[in-house]
Amino acid sequence: MTPDFPSIQGPICAIPLSHNDRIVMGHGSGGRMTQELIRKVFQPYFSNPTLDANNDFGVIASIGNRIAVSTDAHIVSPLFFPGGDIGRLAVCGTVNDVAMSGGKPVAITASFIIEEGFLIADLSRIAMSMSDAAREAGVIIVAGDTKVVEKGKADGVFISTTGIGYISEGIEIGGSNAKPGDTVIISGSLGDHGMAVLSARGDLGFETEILSDVAPLNGMIQSLVNEIEVIHVLRDPTRGGLATTLNEIAVQSKVNISIEENLIPVKSPVASVCELLGFDPLYVANEGKLIVIVPSPHAQKALGIIRENKYGKDAAIIGTVNIEPKSRVLLKTRIGSNRVLDVMAGEMLPRIC
Amino acid sequence: MTPDFPSIQGPICAIPLSHNDRIVMGHGSGGRMTQELIRKVFQPYFSNPTLDANNDFGVIASIGNRIAVSTDAHIVSPLFFPGGDIGRLAVCGTVNDVAMSGGKPVAITASFIIEEGFLIADLSRIAMSMSDAAREAGVIIVAGDTKVVEKGKADGVFISTTGIGYISEGIEIGGSNAKPGDTVIISGSLGDHGMAVLSARGDLGFETEILSDVAPLNGMIQSLVNEIEVIHVLRDPTRGGLATTLNEIAVQSKVNISIEENLIPVKSPVASVCELLGFDPLYVANEGKLIVIVPSPHAQKALGIIRENKYGKDAAIIGTVNIEPKSRVLLKTRIGSNRVLDVMAGEMLPRIC
Repeated sequence: MTPDFPSIQGPICAIPLSHNDRIVMGHGSGGRMTQELIRKVFQPYFSNPTLDANNDFGVIASIGNRIAVSTDAHIVSPLFFPGGDIGRLAVCGTVNDVAMSGGKPVAITASFIIEEGFLIADLSRIAMSMSDAAREAGVIIVAGDTKVVEKGKADGVFISTTGIGYISEGIEIGGSNAKPGDTVIISGSLGDHGMAVLSARGDLGFETEILSDVAPLNGMIQSLVNEIEVIHVLRDPTRGGLATTLNEIAVQSKVNISIEENLIPVKSPVASVCELLGFDPLYVANEGKLIVIVPSPHAQKALGIIRENKYGKDAAIIGTVNIEPKSRVLLKTRIGSNRVLDVMAGEMLPRIC
Repeated sequence: MTPDFPSIQGPICAIPLSHNDRIVMGHGSGGRMTQELIRKVFQPYFSNPTLDANNDFGVIASIGNRIAVSTDAHIVSPLFFPGGDIGRLAVCGTVNDVAMSGGKPVAITASFIIEEGFLIADLSRIAMSMSDAAREAGVIIVAGDTKVVEKGKADGVFISTTGIGYISEGIEIGGSNAKPGDTVIISGSLGDHGMAVLSARGDLGFETEILSDVAPLNGMIQSLVNEIEVIHVLRDPTRGGLATTLNEIAVQSKVNISIEENLIPVKSPVASVCELLGFDPLYVANEGKLIVIVPSPHAQKALGIIRENKYGKDAAIIGTVNIEPKSRVLLKTRIGSNRVLDVMAGEMLPRIC
């Protein structure tokens, strides 16, 4: 549909956009007000030669012979939370999913659904945050779209991002590749993102120092791919947390995954809030953590590489991959008993990402 | 973010999903209910080897050395309208934008933002429609995502799609390539989509026979690219209509575009409703129409190729590209006068796509 972000030229608009202004329906019309919005709010942050070519499509060079593609809708509430915002989340979430292929993310697209009345200043802040995250991750925004819906028909802004990356020859990483004898590593502490968003809602009745871990992990992954000969699985434990994600891998690979509770890093404020509210940090969403499954002989080296990264200082080996019971995750608890760790059944914390 | 569509396996859910069921917040949790929703509603229609690999990313083969990428958020209201629905729109809109590069669309991603309480039966109907449109366009859905927001925080369902295509060696088509001496062709009648959506809202107070033109145009474009030696511009006049889209091209190419009102095809029911309600069909959105700008010697052949396509029977030559006045579009009216045809200023019909 035209005009996308690429179509950002046109006669100068007579209506100036100031930061006190709010989104009106006309900003989604595809006409002059849309062009103005894009030129004043998005272009200052997103500009690059591909986007600035002003077509309905962005053109990127194709490198290698396999492309990894991933997409996510972002609906987090509130839009701004300790440690991040919907903009950083939208870029990192999609960059990370592409990177889980072992490939190199190069480009993302972004489509915005904006509620009438939304503050232009907040939209600018989100665009700036996306731009910063994209720069950190080394990706460019190659296409975009803005739509506006009436007040009460959305919730501030929703952002859908799609990421594109290239997978080098010889890399075969995926959820179905875990093998008995493998070691399971987590790149850091669990539950930070979910608890940071929850605390930002102000429902806790007290303040916490918890920050979201939202971060691009492609740098860490690139180091692993470059230096570790065999990597079986990379996956980020986002919605549903570590427990749900390990269950997905156990089912896909038809293996057992056994982890030990006392090896799993959880920051003490997160553990406290979880205990108080009855949440299990193993089911709480993370946005800057990575599960790495490698053959055991490579585990120590992989752990070292992860710990060298700024987002991997608290990395730990947390378990092993075994033959039986197939498609199940077992947790050895602190008191030494073994229990089945199931997929999250319903919802725990809605609108976390 | 996990789990995307690719993560659709897991233990059988104890809660059956029936068509009378409605979306609840748990369907967006990333846990068992999300898996169930994807398995029962989306997988039956979207299944393909790439998606069924159950990873956070889809892997596609890279062909050639240039990739075209486009993205769109779809918020049309109502979701179902004469001639189409949001599903067909979401696939065709993005396929078309990719095709405007002259490239061959091969894959799309789809992310869904669903309002709590939405009927599962309607979601299935939309998934089926997307599947049908994707099959017609010859693309596969390689990645997806579902999120759920509380009742009153969205409007039924919003769908963001991103398309990926390959551009063959030697093809250079874009909005900045129009040249004086070129001929402007439109592939069919204007205003059908916008007026069909408007009539579906029931605000007209009378019934019309107008159907949306929503359709994939990549087949038509492939024929043009294969048979016409030089194509300068391809663009679909969606939001903002023909007038706004031609203005974008005039600005990008720094040329004048002059069209003749009496050459522009508008179906008589569309013309009648527009006249009654004070709309100008030149500013009404189309979703299955194509502007083609080619050097004049190629115009008749291009017109013939378009007319052979099922979506191009009413194609017509409507104008020419000239040197002056630069970056302007002129309309020669039925009574013979010339007037400047400007970009749409604000909004005319909101939520048309």
